[in-house]
Amino acid sequence: MRIGIIGGGQLARMLALAGKPLGFQFSFYEPRDEHCVDQLGLISRNAYDDLNALTAFANDVDVITYENENIPVQSILSLESSYTVYPSSRALRITQDRLYEKQLFESLAIPTTRYMDIQTKDDLTQASHLLGFPFVLKTRRGGYDGKGQWIIRSNDDITSLPNLTSLDGYLAEEFVDFEREVSIIGVRSPHGDTKFYPLSNNIHQDGILISTHVNTLDPLFDSAKKALHQVLNELNYVGVLTIEFFVRHNTLFANELAPRVHNTGHWTIEGTSCSQFENHLRAICDLPLGETQSLFKNIHMTNIIGSWPDRKTLLETKNLRLHDYEKKERPQRKLGHYTVIQ
Amino acid sequence: MRIGIIGGGQLARMLALAGKPLGFQFSFYEPRDEHCVDQLGLISRNAYDDLNALTAFANDVDVITYENENIPVQSILSLESSYTVYPSSRALRITQDRLYEKQLFESLAIPTTRYMDIQTKDDLTQASHLLGFPFVLKTRRGGYDGKGQWIIRSNDDITSLPNLTSLDGYLAEEFVDFEREVSIIGVRSPHGDTKFYPLSNNIHQDGILISTHVNTLDPLFDSAKKALHQVLNELNYVGVLTIEFFVRHNTLFANELAPRVHNTGHWTIEGTSCSQFENHLRAICDLPLGETQSLFKNIHMTNIIGSWPDRKTLLETKNLRLHDYEKKERPQRKLGHYTVIQ
Repeated sequence: MRIGIIGGGQLARMLALAGKPLGFQFSFYEPRDEHCVDQLGLISRNAYDDLNALTAFANDVDVITYENENIPVQSILSLESSYTVYPSSRALRITQDRLYEKQLFESLAIPTTRYMDIQTKDDLTQASHLLGFPFVLKTRRGGYDGKGQWIIRSNDDITSLPNLTSLDGYLAEEFVDFEREVSIIGVRSPHGDTKFYPLSNNIHQDGILISTHVNTLDPLFDSAKKALHQVLNELNYVGVLTIEFFVRHNTLFANELAPRVHNTGHWTIEGTSCSQFENHLRAICDLPLGETQSLFKNIHMTNIIGSWPDRKTLLETKNLRLHDYEKKERPQRKLGHYTVIQ
Repeated sequence: MRIGIIGGGQLARMLALAGKPLGFQFSFYEPRDEHCVDQLGLISRNAYDDLNALTAFANDVDVITYENENIPVQSILSLESSYTVYPSSRALRITQDRLYEKQLFESLAIPTTRYMDIQTKDDLTQASHLLGFPFVLKTRRGGYDGKGQWIIRSNDDITSLPNLTSLDGYLAEEFVDFEREVSIIGVRSPHGDTKFYPLSNNIHQDGILISTHVNTLDPLFDSAKKALHQVLNELNYVGVLTIEFFVRHNTLFANELAPRVHNTGHWTIEGTSCSQFENHLRAICDLPLGETQSLFKNIHMTNIIGSWPDRKTLLETKNLRLHDYEKKERPQRKLGHYTVIQ
């Protein structure tokens, strides 16, 4: 079985490392010279919107998936008419656009923060009346790791903003003074079987995930699971899907969806007998889903961001497992992570 | 850091899969067309005794190791004068020859079965007087998975044996009516730091390992560890080394050494926070050794031999982790293994 992954970042890398023990072969479709999948499979270096190159890629694999949501919907739509592609273009269209995500949450009665579609700068004053100050202005698409987000605290902030020029549009969102951030990761097979990993508690800094801590007894697990189950079924989804939530007054507010394996699930490599990466592959290959319970009481995952700490110190730490993505050091860049189990 | 592995079987494959998360790159030196390291690194296809090709291979890597003991000692001896190679040629010379192994055990006062060096067929009668019937005739070198061994039950058996033509010589060994077979795996760093994994209980059939079961409370652990520690230090060994023992009357008898990661340690991939594969790499790269305690109470490893069982059934089994070596089915061939943790 040869699996084609569109994208060649660390998520593609960890998918391949999870799939090799199952005997899968991999091909990657990655336009960048800099990637994380060197010597893990064949690499096709073409643009995400090059439909001829995508078709050639698809002809050489048994199933296609993707590791990030910045791929044109049109590319997936075009492939899925002739090839097996998971998740679907519909799932991608919704999850790469914050407005569509909000509308999906609302349609399923999943609590989410209040928001307003922003077309022009003039809409921001109306947003301030609807949402109050401060509120958050976000691009509808393409933002990640805190990029494409601005906190608007006053009319002066509105005035001093540059023009809103992104063709993708914008969204204004209520500023949530949350107690904590959590996420749930689940997986669904082509037959509708589902499995859910325990909630992880996530710490962000400057919009970038710093660390996660797994709480196997989180009282919010059931409602998070219910929300994710609804979304998985509504989208007739196949593969791994993640919802990130804010928690305020002990209540979940859905923040965003990711149609893929997720940084807050890296702990599952060591922490479960079937990681998010392996379960994604099992799902898209129509194999039985694996167990998602945590095998340990305490699991902490920490991202290595920007520059490397001393490796010897890391490797000397008891029960620490290191994951190096083989990326060059650069500020704010995720270079690797480590997981400590207890 | 680029690691050169001589040999491209499943042990090389699992070394690479353990090393990739640490950011290591791999090159393999493997004469056979059929191997298990496709798309895990560069592959040099040359004979084990081609010193020019070995030198070219060595020039492109930072450290060299090997995954089987069927490599000519001369090749390792030649490389280690100019390159970092672990384990040493001395360790290889001893561990690839049953007679030298026996002599090493004796020199360290590690109990082993009685034996006799066999030069010609005539020596077998003397062996029968010394060891009694039945006894076991083994080639000194090259035997594995039960190959190169004969049980001699009578003078008729001696008479009907073909001539002893192996240039490697032979050894006659006392037949041990053992209660069980166990093995211990340990690792030693260039500075003499050591770590030891728990004993595994091993079940063989027709000379091939079928399964292992880890017993973290085995009363024989301390004496096995002591023996392995002695051997590691005597050889000034760097990397993973394995001793297999027979157990009779609750006493260990050292049977053989393997200068490498070992089938009876495959359980460490899931069962510890630093597998035998990762610790071998850490040792040869002079990095701190990782923890070797078992993380679970019950761990069973089972080899997949000759032909594949139904994969869906395997993947449906709770907490089963599958390892496919991507080898073609063939009688008596190890195709993969699975580990069940509890």
